[in-house]
Amino acid sequence: MCKAVVYVTLRQSVLDPQGHAVKGALHTLGFDEVKDVRIGKYMELELDTADRAQAEERVRAMCEKLLANTVIEDYRFDIVEG
Amino acid sequence: MCKAVVYVTLRQSVLDPQGHAVKGALHTLGFDEVKDVRIGKYMELELDTADRAQAEERVRAMCEKLLANTVIEDYRFDIVEG
Repeated sequence: MCKAVVYVTLRQSVLDPQGHAVKGALHTLGFDEVKDVRIGKYMELELDTADRAQAEERVRAMCEKLLANTVIEDYRFDIVEG
Repeated sequence: MCKAVVYVTLRQSVLDPQGHAVKGALHTLGFDEVKDVRIGKYMELELDTADRAQAEERVRAMCEKLLANTVIEDYRFDIVEG
């Protein structure tokens, strides 16, 4: 068993309306020092694989096929155990 | 300026229907080694603060008040620059 942690973020050139809304809400609450907010996804995957190199290859394929929309999103991942 | 990276995850005892759906989709695509998926949020905040200790305190307050629902979610954060 090993665990993969995947981070999916919007590309810098893509507008982030969710982040914009959160920034506005933080300002309303008095957190005026917040200059920008970008929101992404964080995923933890438990994999039934012992081979770390194979796990990396498979997680990359998962990101390309399903977990990230590579037109507007970047992804990175770490294999944290195994 | 410093940057805070915030991770918000569902508590282990809370069901994650989104993660369950992603696991099903990965199985459909042939990634049968995926045993569990948990989905959380990843946020990057740009802060106009030079004082790291103060930034930590403020980001903790932001998490408690807005960024995480502490009834069902855990949060952690890193101050990565500044």
